[in-house]
Amino acid sequence: VELTELGDAEVTDVLFACKARVLDLRNDQRFRYILLFKNHGSAAGATLEHSHSQVIALPITPRQVADEIEGARRHHDHRERCIFCDIVGQERKDRSRLVYENEEFVVFAPWAPRSPFETWILPKRHESNFEAEPRERLAFAAQALRSTLRRLNSALGRPAYNYMVHTNPLRDASSPSYHWHIEVVPALTQVAGFEWASGFYINPVPPEEAAEFLRKAAV
Amino acid sequence: VELTELGDAEVTDVLFACKARVLDLRNDQRFRYILLFKNHGSAAGATLEHSHSQVIALPITPRQVADEIEGARRHHDHRERCIFCDIVGQERKDRSRLVYENEEFVVFAPWAPRSPFETWILPKRHESNFEAEPRERLAFAAQALRSTLRRLNSALGRPAYNYMVHTNPLRDASSPSYHWHIEVVPALTQVAGFEWASGFYINPVPPEEAAEFLRKAAV
Repeated sequence: VELTELGDAEVTDVLFACKARVLDLRNDQRFRYILLFKNHGSAAGATLEHSHSQVIALPITPRQVADEIEGARRHHDHRERCIFCDIVGQERKDRSRLVYENEEFVVFAPWAPRSPFETWILPKRHESNFEAEPRERLAFAAQALRSTLRRLNSALGRPAYNYMVHTNPLRDASSPSYHWHIEVVPALTQVAGFEWASGFYINPVPPEEAAEFLRKAAV
Repeated sequence: VELTELGDAEVTDVLFACKARVLDLRNDQRFRYILLFKNHGSAAGATLEHSHSQVIALPITPRQVADEIEGARRHHDHRERCIFCDIVGQERKDRSRLVYENEEFVVFAPWAPRSPFETWILPKRHESNFEAEPRERLAFAAQALRSTLRRLNSALGRPAYNYMVHTNPLRDASSPSYHWHIEVVPALTQVAGFEWASGFYINPVPPEEAAEFLRKAAV
């Protein structure tokens, strides 16, 4: 059974189980960050046959998250607003990169995606910490995640994919500038010499085209 | 014909052709950086059957290079020495991560490799700009590159690989802190959820073991 074959209530259980693991692991003072992610399909690095998610506890904040937090802090210093809240507002208004929304979450193709069909899932209401979300709001996150993965399946013929949760570091108080979210990256391109050398990513699919394709996909 | 099947003089011609392209492209004022790299084998992202290298001219300095330059500058501010020169000295003294050396170049497994068998090739003499190297010194670089690739072939059964040249941005004067080099990364592991989420890399092979394997490999 794959995640996309589960119902909304079961996907909510998966996210709630992730939250429970984070709440338990943060009692261990050695840990600074709990990384939640999923590798689906061998092209996305999955090495187990059965469907699974992963939890890795780290003694430091991951570099990728630290970069996001620093960029968000700079925007907040300058504008006194959360950049992720600004992006949610802009994507809902512009609609060209919008894929899906429900009462609490919005799904869109980010402005500068690293990979074709990279898709982000953000809570509409400002919240820094994934583990602070009550079950009622995780139910909306589950709906958004399930809808996104089913759209990718239908639009791209069941691709391998990764998703990862980016949240505030453990024991950091809720931040006015950082905003937790899920990043979904289908494994369609390869990291090659250019990416290794530069830290830049070549993506032949504009986010507006990817979003249109996903909006129209059967769910 | 693959690069590793060419003789030292022919590999020198390849590097000299790369230098000639950089010298020509830097006349175009739009360009800030010329990235030289090679994708060998489909697992490393090669899409052409025949052996080839790639040259991409960029209007900005790649993020990966900017990070290296910034780290090298901080070391230089603190110690008044080039960090790459310090590493060359340390690896030649310690020898546990050393793979090969000739009069002008040293080849070693870096202290914190992103990938199993990642291998770096550095000029022993301080030089920031690849394109400043005379043909006589490129001949030693070619020897080191050819030896490295042939060792990887023999130790790992002809793996797919990427290599890339990291050099100073165009029109920057020679820097006392930045030092050009070649990074060779065999395509043995996959970028999966953990790497996307964190910017960190899981590598199951310690550099000392990789170096020992490559030192002993038939060339």
